Amino acid sequence: MKAQIFSFIILWSLSCKTVTFAQSNQANDSIIIRQFYDAALMQGKCYQWLDYLSNQIGGRLSGSPQAQRAVQWAKMVMDTLKFDKVYLQEVMVPYWVRGKKEEGKIISKKFGKVDVHVCALGNSVGTDKKGVTAQVIEVRALNELEKLGKEKIEGKIVFYNRPMEPRNINTFVSYGQAVDQRALGASEAAKYDAVGVIVRSMTLAHDDHPHTGSLRYDTALKKLPAVAISTNDADKLSEMLKRDPELKFYFKTDCRMMGEVLSYNVIGEIRGTLYPNEIILVGGHLDAWDNGDGAHDDGAGCVHAIESLRLFQVLGIRPKRTLRAVLFMNEENGLRGGLKYAEAAARNSNERHIAAIESDAGGFTPRGFGFSCENKNTLSKMLKYVKYFKPYGLHEFKEGGGGADISPLKNHQKEIVLIGYIPDSQRYFDYHHAEIDIFANVNRRELELGAGSIAALLYLLSEYGTE
Amino acid sequence: MKAQIFSFIILWSLSCKTVTFAQSNQANDSIIIRQFYDAALMQGKCYQWLDYLSNQIGGRLSGSPQAQRAVQWAKMVMDTLKFDKVYLQEVMVPYWVRGKKEEGKIISKKFGKVDVHVCALGNSVGTDKKGVTAQVIEVRALNELEKLGKEKIEGKIVFYNRPMEPRNINTFVSYGQAVDQRALGASEAAKYDAVGVIVRSMTLAHDDHPHTGSLRYDTALKKLPAVAISTNDADKLSEMLKRDPELKFYFKTDCRMMGEVLSYNVIGEIRGTLYPNEIILVGGHLDAWDNGDGAHDDGAGCVHAIESLRLFQVLGIRPKRTLRAVLFMNEENGLRGGLKYAEAAARNSNERHIAAIESDAGGFTPRGFGFSCENKNTLSKMLKYVKYFKPYGLHEFKEGGGGADISPLKNHQKEIVLIGYIPDSQRYFDYHHAEIDIFANVNRRELELGAGSIAALLYLLSEYGTE
Repeated sequence: MKAQIFSFIILWSLSCKTVTFAQSNQANDSIIIRQFYDAALMQGKCYQWLDYLSNQIGGRLSGSPQAQRAVQWAKMVMDTLKFDKVYLQEVMVPYWVRGKKEEGKIISKKFGKVDVHVCALGNSVGTDKKGVTAQVIEVRALNELEKLGKEKIEGKIVFYNRPMEPRNINTFVSYGQAVDQRALGASEAAKYDAVGVIVRSMTLAHDDHPHTGSLRYDTALKKLPAVAISTNDADKLSEMLKRDPELKFYFKTDCRMMGEVLSYNVIGEIRGTLYPNEIILVGGHLDAWDNGDGAHDDGAGCVHAIESLRLFQVLGIRPKRTLRAVLFMNEENGLRGGLKYAEAAARNSNERHIAAIESDAGGFTPRGFGFSCENKNTLSKMLKYVKYFKPYGLHEFKEGGGGADISPLKNHQKEIVLIGYIPDSQRYFDYHHAEIDIFANVNRRELELGAGSIAALLYLLSEYGTE
Repeated sequence: MKAQIFSFIILWSLSCKTVTFAQSNQANDSIIIRQFYDAALMQGKCYQWLDYLSNQIGGRLSGSPQAQRAVQWAKMVMDTLKFDKVYLQEVMVPYWVRGKKEEGKIISKKFGKVDVHVCALGNSVGTDKKGVTAQVIEVRALNELEKLGKEKIEGKIVFYNRPMEPRNINTFVSYGQAVDQRALGASEAAKYDAVGVIVRSMTLAHDDHPHTGSLRYDTALKKLPAVAISTNDADKLSEMLKRDPELKFYFKTDCRMMGEVLSYNVIGEIRGTLYPNEIILVGGHLDAWDNGDGAHDDGAGCVHAIESLRLFQVLGIRPKRTLRAVLFMNEENGLRGGLKYAEAAARNSNERHIAAIESDAGGFTPRGFGFSCENKNTLSKMLKYVKYFKPYGLHEFKEGGGGADISPLKNHQKEIVLIGYIPDSQRYFDYHHAEIDIFANVNRRELELGAGSIAALLYLLSEYGTE
């Protein structure tokens, strides 16, 4: 009995110590996280970097001279910061050019000629010099084409007009539900001998901006030219089709694929003090559509990645694990940068990627992070970190998350935690892939709070790992 | 023993029923709340109303012809909706006019003459026709004046230049910490025989827009003319003062108080079916500063109030308690509407206000509600409602909240719950009281989600009361 009491006391005092130690650790971490946010808001650089990237370089599609300038600029920024290692990783990328500005017109005997706002979809072939002029068949879903059959589609332009669903609170869900029209619509229409494709812009806004974005051709099928049409004009076309089903649509595009060219991922890192071979990646993508300035998509993610490392320097904190900022090339129309990075990482047996955060959802007020990993204990550990972030308005720590560029890492590193940064999603698709994705539509504080949030999570990951 | 078992079974089955009933109620409420959000996003009217109020009426300071038009418009909207009762409540308001556009200039022997962006503070007296020209003394806080004394202040312009604190995550906290300069600075400076006042604009942005807002004169002291200066120009002036302390500042304003005129609160209600004498108020303020269009401040709150009642009509839900939308007049420079409403409510012994929600923090993504009430059980009941709102991104249900217009109700109705609607605060002060508080800076979905959130809370309040 005495022995029992004795061991109980021992156990009790040990558990007290653990609690006290954990509590003091937690208090200390809370203080450090506060410092990350303070530094992001008071000494932030990401807003001025984004100004330069958006306004001095602008749209920077893979392979373009602007993309090349962005690569040099990003390397220069990281060199200047004296990260422990800064380098370029070669990657071959497709080089697609838009050419001359697109034209689009409704031609109706009933209503006359009506100009509409269109832009070529990325990777699309262009029309010939006369453009395409044909009757229009409107559908809401890819699988309607099979029901309509070749008879009703042959020689026509297929008009995909399913709107993004406004009722989803997370607008990315609506995007995911609608984007098959843009990505796969051209090849689906080619099966039935259509001559061109119009896709309703992927946005919840009602306005006059066409939103581009990539399509993927099935190489076994004819490549049809495809354009996005603004939502206002999509509604107009749909309405006019009801009253004049015989109307024709004309569009002309000058775009073409120029082949493959050499480009780069831009990489910079701060080496870990205790576990330098454990890599925690933070990334965004450097390429951006040519019609806007790629401020939210994904200039924000690029400056988040660099800034979150710089904040460690500002605070004089050496991370225990290696932090690596990766600005990927070619997310928009090929994902070559992400694939190349993952392949190289798989070949490097000296390193182990334990976590990767991607910021590719815009520079809006931070709301949380999403986590994908196989180990349930790891997930549980990650989700508990929400307690540190609630004071900063981040409540959404949830299962499921990542990003396009970091997703190939999963193929080679099973135990990796893929993490998606979650900012407020309400405005994102207003700007996404459109000419209004410009610096003026980014709010400084919202952007900076994102950098602070990502840096704070990097800190916890580098201190405590993922196991 | 048997009897005990029997009563245990009875109790157990009763408790099961209670649980089941509560669960089914909760499930049902969740469905109805989903319907409110769906209707707000799919059949919303608030965005088009705000378009009209901002772009067709615009700035509408108390007493102005625009304010009068806004009163008529708001009544017309509610009449058209066929609310059970729509009426105007008379209220005498101060009528302050800005007059001709303001001028501001730094005059330095070292740097020459530099134009700066200023605007008169609301309620300020104007300068004479020659304007005010004097040396400048810069301070960061009201209490510095006492230390400086009359000797150093007499004949000078006092320049209040304490910035809003960027580190607060909730920007309203920073506003509260800085706004004494604007509200009380002129009279404080008058104590020491200053000749005018410049106040750094109340914003966290670094830009060229001066932000107006009201000051309050101590009637026992001389009324000094006061202007706000843009944050960029405040920094410029401060920097130049360091290098040339003898520089002079010139400003000219044409503003004046025109006396009191008759105006109105605009009120519309849907009568409760079970407890018609229990009033749940939802309000915003109809007056707005003259330099912008008052889109966020507080056009958003006005259309939220009307829309949240209309959503009950859309869904065909008759509230158990009376819902009353009140668009208050004169929040910005007098609060006469809020005071008048509360006095009238106190005299009406047939009614009891059980809750009042104010939306006066802009039309941004909803984040939660703040509750002020004396009864701890009531507070606890309110805070638990967060569970219904988390799926829509609202996590901040917290103690403390209300709004300027509804605050006087507390004096007469001790048991009332005052509720402040909490949207994301990051961008609010960028626009607040400045010429860029315009419709184009309001996002449709963010505005509509606010209306859905407020309607959903009104529903819970009207179903279950506050006790």
